[in-house]
Formats: sequence, C-alpha cells, structure tokens
Amino acid sequence: MFEEVIKKIEPIEKDFIEQAAARQLTLTKPPQSLGRLEEIANRICAIQRTLKPYVESKKIIICAGSHGITDEGVSPFPTKVTAQMVVNFLNGGAAINALANTVGAKIDVVNVGVRGEIPKVDLKNENCRFISNKVADGTRNFAKENAMSEQEMQAAVNIGIELAKEASKNGVKMIGLGEMGIGNTTSASVITSALKGIAAKYTVGRGTGANDEMLAHKIDVVEKALKFHELKTESDPFEILQKVGGLEIACLVGVCIGAGLEKVVIVTDGFIATSAVGLVVKICPLIKDYVFASHLSVEVGHGKLLELIGQKALFDLEMRLGEGTGAALAFGIIQSAVKVFNEMATFEQASVSNQR
Amino acid sequence: MFEEVIKKIEPIEKDFIEQAAARQLTLTKPPQSLGRLEEIANRICAIQRTLKPYVESKKIIICAGSHGITDEGVSPFPTKVTAQMVVNFLNGGAAINALANTVGAKIDVVNVGVRGEIPKVDLKNENCRFISNKVADGTRNFAKENAMSEQEMQAAVNIGIELAKEASKNGVKMIGLGEMGIGNTTSASVITSALKGIAAKYTVGRGTGANDEMLAHKIDVVEKALKFHELKTESDPFEILQKVGGLEIACLVGVCIGAGLEKVVIVTDGFIATSAVGLVVKICPLIKDYVFASHLSVEVGHGKLLELIGQKALFDLEMRLGEGTGAALAFGIIQSAVKVFNEMATFEQASVSNQR
Repeated sequence: MFEEVIKKIEPIEKDFIEQAAARQLTLTKPPQSLGRLEEIANRICAIQRTLKPYVESKKIIICAGSHGITDEGVSPFPTKVTAQMVVNFLNGGAAINALANTVGAKIDVVNVGVRGEIPKVDLKNENCRFISNKVADGTRNFAKENAMSEQEMQAAVNIGIELAKEASKNGVKMIGLGEMGIGNTTSASVITSALKGIAAKYTVGRGTGANDEMLAHKIDVVEKALKFHELKTESDPFEILQKVGGLEIACLVGVCIGAGLEKVVIVTDGFIATSAVGLVVKICPLIKDYVFASHLSVEVGHGKLLELIGQKALFDLEMRLGEGTGAALAFGIIQSAVKVFNEMATFEQASVSNQR
Repeated sequence: MFEEVIKKIEPIEKDFIEQAAARQLTLTKPPQSLGRLEEIANRICAIQRTLKPYVESKKIIICAGSHGITDEGVSPFPTKVTAQMVVNFLNGGAAINALANTVGAKIDVVNVGVRGEIPKVDLKNENCRFISNKVADGTRNFAKENAMSEQEMQAAVNIGIELAKEASKNGVKMIGLGEMGIGNTTSASVITSALKGIAAKYTVGRGTGANDEMLAHKIDVVEKALKFHELKTESDPFEILQKVGGLEIACLVGVCIGAGLEKVVIVTDGFIATSAVGLVVKICPLIKDYVFASHLSVEVGHGKLLELIGQKALFDLEMRLGEGTGAALAFGIIQSAVKVFNEMATFEQASVSNQR
C-alpha cells in the first residue's frame, strides 16, 4: 500500500564510502585508529552524497500512543502514564529532555493515539514542539481483535512520513526515533517474533519492569497473539503492524520511510523503535544503510532486531527506557565522528610525518 | 616516595551512592531503566559528596613524551611525530581537538619530555593551553638501561600532581587522561605484563599500526625488558614506572594522584593512559572509585588493565588512537548521566503515576 512511496527511496551512494575512507587515510592519525567513528562518518558521506557531511541539525521524534493490550495486564504501570509522560516531555521533565539538551537536539512530541485528553501545556522549552494528530483513542486489544483498522494504520504511517519530510525541509539531517506507550514492548515482541519467526520467549522482556509472574504471562500473551493473528515470517509487514502494532510504532515506520526518501540519517533507540525499523527493512532492505543503531537494550528481543536490520549497536549501557534516550546519546557519538572527519588536519597540512 | 601524598587520598563517600540511588527511584522512569547512566551519576555523587553533582567544567590533560625504546624499531611512525603531533594539538588539527570541542572540554598539552625543540605556535584556540615543563629529552632505551632516573620520574609525577591540583583550583571537576608518545604502547605493554604477571603476548598489540613482523619483534622486546629489569607483580609500581615507563606516563600517574587528592573525576582513555591508572591502583586501590573507564581499546592489553582497575568500559568503538579521544567521547556520556540526574522531574512533581 505504501509500495509506490517506498520505491522512491534511493540507495546510498557507496562510492562516497570509498572516497571518505581515502580521506580518512590522509588525516593525522594511524589508519583506522578511530575505528567505528570512521565507519560512521564514511557512511554519512554516502547517505548525504558529499565529502562535507553535516549532522548538527538533528531531532528526536517521540511518537506516543496507548495500547489496548494493557487490558491483559502486561505492564506494571497504568495506561494513563502514557498521557502523563507526554505532559512530562512537554514540561521538560523527562530523561529525553535532559539528554536531548546535552547534545542540542530538538524534540517533536507526537500524539498519534494517546487514550484520553492531553491537558494543555505552556511550552517553556523552545526546543520542544507538540504535534497533536490523533488517529484513534489508542489501539484495540490485539489479544482479541486487530490493534488498528487498515485506515488507522495508514493514517499513522502517513503522519510519520510527513513529519520526516517536514523536518528535512527545515534542514534536519538526523532523526532519532523515540516512543512512549505503556504496553508497547508487548507489541514489539509480537512484531519481532513474527519478523524473525522465533518463539515469544526469545523476544519478551520485562519492559518497564514486569516481575517474573508478569513476564511469564506476557510470553503467553505474545504466543497467543502470534497464533490468533496467524503471523509468520512471510506475513506482510504492514499486516503485522496493523494487527499487533501500535499507533506510535506505525508513525515511526512512517518516519523511517520519510527519512529514507529525504536521505536523512536515522538513529534507532531501543526495542520498540527498532521494531519499527525492522518492519521497514523487511519491505525495503536498502533502508538499512540509512540507519545507525544507538544502544543495545536490556530487552532480550532487541539483539534479534539489530541482526535483522544489519546494524551493530554503538554502545551498551544497560538501558531500557525508550523515549529516544539511546538515540540522543548516539547523536553525541555520531556528531563527534562527523566533526573529526571535517575538522582534522591532514598529514600534509600539519606537516606531520606519515608512516616510515 | 609519594607515600605521604598518596595517604591523603580519601575514599569516596559510599553513603551518597545509596542516597543518589534512592533519588533515582523517584524520577519519572522505570527503576534502573537508565542502566549504567544511573551508576555513573550515583558514583559521582559519592565522589563529590553531594546530591547535586556537577561535571560541566572538564579538561583533557594530554601528556607528551618521546621514547628511547623506538630505537628498537617498535613503531611504524618515526619518533619525531611526537613533537609534530604536539604542534598539531596546539593548532587544533588533531582528532582530540574536534572531540574535545564537541563536548566543550578544555585541553592542556603538556611537554614532559618530547625529544628536540617544539616550534613556537600561536595559539588560536582559547580552549587549548601549552605547558612546557620538560624533564628530559625523552626517555632512554629501556632495552638497555632504565628509561628514567628516579629524579626524572619523580619530577614528571610531580608535574602531573600539580596540574591536577591547579585544574581543581580553577573549578575543573572531571579530567580525561590523554597522551602522545610514539613508542609508548611498548612501555604500556611492559607495565601491564609486570602489574598483571602475564606474558608479553597478552599485552602487546599493534600500537599505531605495527605489521605482523613488527608485532613479533615488539613481543620479543617486551619479554626481554621484563627479564632485563627483573619486573614482576610484586615490583614497586614506581620502580616499574622508572625502569620501563614514559615521562608522559609518569605525568599521568601524577594527574591521577592529584585528581584523587582533589576528589576530581578521572576518565581513562586507551591502553597507555590506563597503564598509568593501573600503576596508581596498585599503590592506592581506593583510587578505583574515582575512575571511569571510557572505551575498550583494540589494544589487547587494555582489557587486562580494566580488570586491574576494576572498571568496565562505557563503550567499544574499536578505537586505538589515544590523545584522550576515548575520554572526550566518555565526557559526553558522563555529562548526560549527571544532567539526567539533576534535571529530571520526580513522579510527584510531574504528577506521573508510579507503578501499580
């Protein structure tokens, strides 16, 4: 259904990786001594088709949605926390606010489907913007029915595509994927099990802090959902998304598609954000080259998704918060990689002797 | 010989770790969901004895020295590169300049013993300072004699202690350990083999880029040095330092001691900088708690040193450059951890419901 749009995503220009690697060899450091920082800068050259990469203008897009599956008791936090946290983002009190500020990233908070009303907030922080574009009052309980209608899913994806396009139009060169939605690790687990064809026990983690009993129950909920919706590796990713996804996950799928169309660098976050990337990679494998994996989450399923999207995490700080917190930390590393590439002197410029 | 000074280093106040952990539980995130970011902030509270930690004012101290061991052909780069790179630092053309700028860190470039003259440089970058405090014209070739005299070693350590004290007096709260010295991975390998009592093959890596033949030769040089100087695990760390260390390593030993005295956060870099920390830890184990390990270097011996200093690296980006480049990247992560701790709203402040 998004076939026509997705077809327009162009592969990165791999020639620029070679050219960038050649420039790296002229810089005043032993060859490859900056390791993955060099890889990062080289690939960004290929994404942007330039040897003067630029990523300073960057944004975290936090998509928020409520989940009907919370009726099954899969999270220790009540569903209303989703709306409360949206307000917290807008007031600047969440972890992502502090982390985005540290690296100078803007934040879009997007209400794609938070249950109930979000009280009006006077935005004090000009780096933070609220986009209210609610598709539905949360998803339906996918233990019993489809999480979304086809129209709802498409609408949420389209919101994401437009957000990425708008960001690009405003000069944003790097987008971090953030999300908020109590219950959404359960969605991400079903998606991961379906995409990878693996049992729930390999994809279900504790989310915001399920205890042993809740964890066992969550595995059961995921197994049953896989059967109920007849999901398997061959299933159409948009079908998986509609049946068991979240409105915020659908929106992030759109953000990835939009970023790919606009040749904007995509930075994953944790398990949920990466499940959105996984869906897009299944439809459009060349999107992989636009993606950098930030951290490896504590959530067991995350590593499986990173395999699927073909990216190795930049770091593992045992985080499992979401919101784009891993992406914001990765922004610092990616920006450093690009700065080194742009600002270092060559052996010739600095009159430094190269190897014997 | 530095016994009296080292005795004055006080342990961190572990009570603050508990208090900080209690505050973390009140912040609007699932318990422990920020993983190691929480650990970092909590420990900095204990180092600074406060629940309002502060690390914004930070500095990379790059100690530079030449190595007589280069006469043995242990590096593919000529010795004169050490002096050339000092000039490059001062001109702002090295990797560390770009990385320090990204996180807003100042740089001290310290000539403790670079062979020959350093040409005068007009400093354009006010974040960078040059300290010329040359103890000797490089070390002597430790394959044949002691690298330093006792006086030289002590002088270099004292320079480091004074630099850390001065930094602290000027408000610096976090010091990253940087170094430059062609040939110094060979020193670090002998130090690591001695400290850990392990064979050279476990501590010798390719440094700035030794080929297979040079690597085999380097292992041989290290084995012979261990025997020639009769170094073993029981050897006095200052004896090891004097016999096979570098003037820049001695200076970094001093920086660690000074930082410990001043309760300043210490951030390691790669193999060489960590060898200096290893020496200090052997004399004064409680220094461990002041140290954060930045990255895990590609150099094989680095992991062994991290075991010794009891710290797990924050990331592994396959780097092996030195200069403080890993420390500068870690500054970004550590600063983020502290910012989150200071700036996040509590569940109560944000009216967010805690767990069921």
